[in-house]
Amino acid sequence: MTRNLKTFSAEKFTNINQREFTKFFNALSGAKPGYLIGSGEGKDENLAIFNSITHLGANPPLLGFIQRPTTVDRHTYQNILKYGHYSFNLITQDFFEEAHQTSARYEKGTNEFNKVGLTAIYKEEIRCPFVDESPIHIALELLEDIEIKSNKTRLIVGKVITISIPDSFTENKSELNFQELKSVNISGLSDYYTLNKLKSLNYAKPK
Amino acid sequence: MTRNLKTFSAEKFTNINQREFTKFFNALSGAKPGYLIGSGEGKDENLAIFNSITHLGANPPLLGFIQRPTTVDRHTYQNILKYGHYSFNLITQDFFEEAHQTSARYEKGTNEFNKVGLTAIYKEEIRCPFVDESPIHIALELLEDIEIKSNKTRLIVGKVITISIPDSFTENKSELNFQELKSVNISGLSDYYTLNKLKSLNYAKPK
Repeated sequence: MTRNLKTFSAEKFTNINQREFTKFFNALSGAKPGYLIGSGEGKDENLAIFNSITHLGANPPLLGFIQRPTTVDRHTYQNILKYGHYSFNLITQDFFEEAHQTSARYEKGTNEFNKVGLTAIYKEEIRCPFVDESPIHIALELLEDIEIKSNKTRLIVGKVITISIPDSFTENKSELNFQELKSVNISGLSDYYTLNKLKSLNYAKPK
Repeated sequence: MTRNLKTFSAEKFTNINQREFTKFFNALSGAKPGYLIGSGEGKDENLAIFNSITHLGANPPLLGFIQRPTTVDRHTYQNILKYGHYSFNLITQDFFEEAHQTSARYEKGTNEFNKVGLTAIYKEEIRCPFVDESPIHIALELLEDIEIKSNKTRLIVGKVITISIPDSFTENKSELNFQELKSVNISGLSDYYTLNKLKSLNYAKPK
């Protein structure tokens, strides 16, 4: 089988219509898990939507995310530098429209929790808010702030300090099923997807 | 509403059972788009499964992926350094089991395309193979190879040089629907999911 694919050079694509290409290219890498990042305390409290959470390794437990260039005001990034702690909160079907609304350009000092109708909660000794409506809270501590020279984006590397999961998880049932959790994935800036478990495959061996 | 969540410190989790924690933590960041990375030519030709493809920016068009520590033999990484080119090929429901089989530890010199039953094709002037069965081929040129000091993983940054998409895409219908494309997402090392389009939301404005 040879499929009927057509090939574009990315540079040509860009020349034709930069805006249309940007939209297409933002979606191209697929539908990625949606998380809300909670940061700051008091008047700095902030909530922002991201779909660039990246697994970096389990020992030590590290997660990254991509921060767009900080040439404009980035409240999440500023809070992370100031407080050192931040939270990842899994987005579900129950509140994805509220989560999306955090992407509006609110002024610094505006509290997104209040604006979009989500509930901030705090945990002992952790200097960032969590989203009460979310079934998975991951608390992180800033470890590395790496500039990607090619386009001035940043990879923010955090060490996971606590993980909160539903009470129903036990030692015998610690498997995360993202269909049951009703999590949503996001492609580009606006397309939301749900997940259906297809299959668990065994560890692959040469054959 | 306050959910019944239980909170673990990640360090404690690790102490209890490192193996079980690693499996849990590999899945924690969500179900991410599955891609096969094609690299090398001739006897170096290689195919490997990844779910850490990351959007870095559209102008210039950059995508990254996470490479585990290169203290052991990493054929994809070695090929990328040697040839400069590599390809991302979206995995679909039609061949996800073959794609999974590429994760077996084949010896250097073993051709995964042949072993798992996928078809390598080449494009003019690009020094890496593509997966004929895949509906989206992205060709990249290595731009940055960044070590994450905390755990010796690497962020490999590539500039997209060509994009191949199905013929059915036109200027009026350039929207990528990952449900229609039958793409699969992967959580951890073994759990496969399909996607259902839930909704497209408008650009959010402060309100």
